[in-house]
Amino acid sequence: MAESHETEVPVALEDPAYRAAVVDLLAVIAYGEISAFDRLSEDAKMAPTLEDKVSLYAMASIEFGHLTGIRERLTELGVDPFAVMAPFVSALDSFHHYTAPSDWLESLVKAYVGDGLAADFYREIAAFLDADTRDLIVASLSDAGHSEFVVARVKQAIADDHRVSGRLALWGRRLMGEALSQAQRVAAEHDALSALLAGGVDRPGMDLAALGRMFTRLTEAHALRMAELGLEA
Amino acid sequence: MAESHETEVPVALEDPAYRAAVVDLLAVIAYGEISAFDRLSEDAKMAPTLEDKVSLYAMASIEFGHLTGIRERLTELGVDPFAVMAPFVSALDSFHHYTAPSDWLESLVKAYVGDGLAADFYREIAAFLDADTRDLIVASLSDAGHSEFVVARVKQAIADDHRVSGRLALWGRRLMGEALSQAQRVAAEHDALSALLAGGVDRPGMDLAALGRMFTRLTEAHALRMAELGLEA
Repeated sequence: MAESHETEVPVALEDPAYRAAVVDLLAVIAYGEISAFDRLSEDAKMAPTLEDKVSLYAMASIEFGHLTGIRERLTELGVDPFAVMAPFVSALDSFHHYTAPSDWLESLVKAYVGDGLAADFYREIAAFLDADTRDLIVASLSDAGHSEFVVARVKQAIADDHRVSGRLALWGRRLMGEALSQAQRVAAEHDALSALLAGGVDRPGMDLAALGRMFTRLTEAHALRMAELGLEA
Repeated sequence: MAESHETEVPVALEDPAYRAAVVDLLAVIAYGEISAFDRLSEDAKMAPTLEDKVSLYAMASIEFGHLTGIRERLTELGVDPFAVMAPFVSALDSFHHYTAPSDWLESLVKAYVGDGLAADFYREIAAFLDADTRDLIVASLSDAGHSEFVVARVKQAIADDHRVSGRLALWGRRLMGEALSQAQRVAAEHDALSALLAGGVDRPGMDLAALGRMFTRLTEAHALRMAELGLEA
């Protein structure tokens, strides 16, 4: 059945609507990784030491390394990876614009909480996808433990000056709010993505109750991450 | 003889002067890779397209990936990698300060010519080292062909507007001049490194004639790279 294809594209992707949704999803993840690199390499300039700067560069490089597989898959799907990313540039750039950290600690919290939230969100969506696409996405989300240094740095800063924790807790809430607001915008502007979540004849989807449960899971995971940093969510 | 060491450090490194020189050399290469990441991720902002930006980010990430092995070796040698890099920060930052590209094409030429020159230089010096250190350094210099996109971009820019080539040729000469000037400063300020080049009782060194030949080889390789870009050296 798939013999007419030159590249090995999963059968599920023969459905044009599903294929369009997968392209959109991979495109938004890919641009997310590029913009994470933008932001982490920029925020790293606020690092108090060379070692801290290098730790943030390591996170940026790891994000970036994930891009390769996603670009290759998009090319296999017959699209220009950069052309399909274009519609998502504005939403992701807006997120970073509205959440530009004002100091090193805000950068660290954003790197940790922001990337964690994005990873949770994409993992939730990946559960509705064919196995190949799901594996590609899940593989692209591993940070190989490189964000762990953030926990030590933030906890130390709170130990040094407990007033820091109130400010960073507010910051974490703002990050969560902006992320949800931009995610909603992306979903609203991209019918294929909304349709993906709604499911199809032969594909499970999410009703409103399921969406609510997903939102609860994301919020709980966010609260856990904040707690790991010693912050209230 | 080496049984008293907990880590596997080559016998050659039991000579304290040689060891000090190797530490200095690895430190300057390591900080060179960090500052290359700084500069490439910053210069990438001038990219005309997302794809071009991502190509420069890829070069930055590859440079950065080389850092891991060198950091590990420095730690094995019993030093704090970041502490030993500190004396080289000023010279490398000065190089980048005096050669800040004013546009995208200058960024590309700098990425290509600057990294090539640094790689040639470290490869020359590596020839005077023990096999383990030499292998580590040579491995850290491979760019896996990621700078090849620069050639296509610069040649296209010259085809589009031939006046570009005169300006970029001057730029290449300035990069070479600044690199030599900073390299000389580094050698003059670090006795261990100068002594390394001079050789020792049981180690070959360079006399003035050999230094002259090395300089000629570096200049020739630089001219070849400029020619690949379609530029006069």
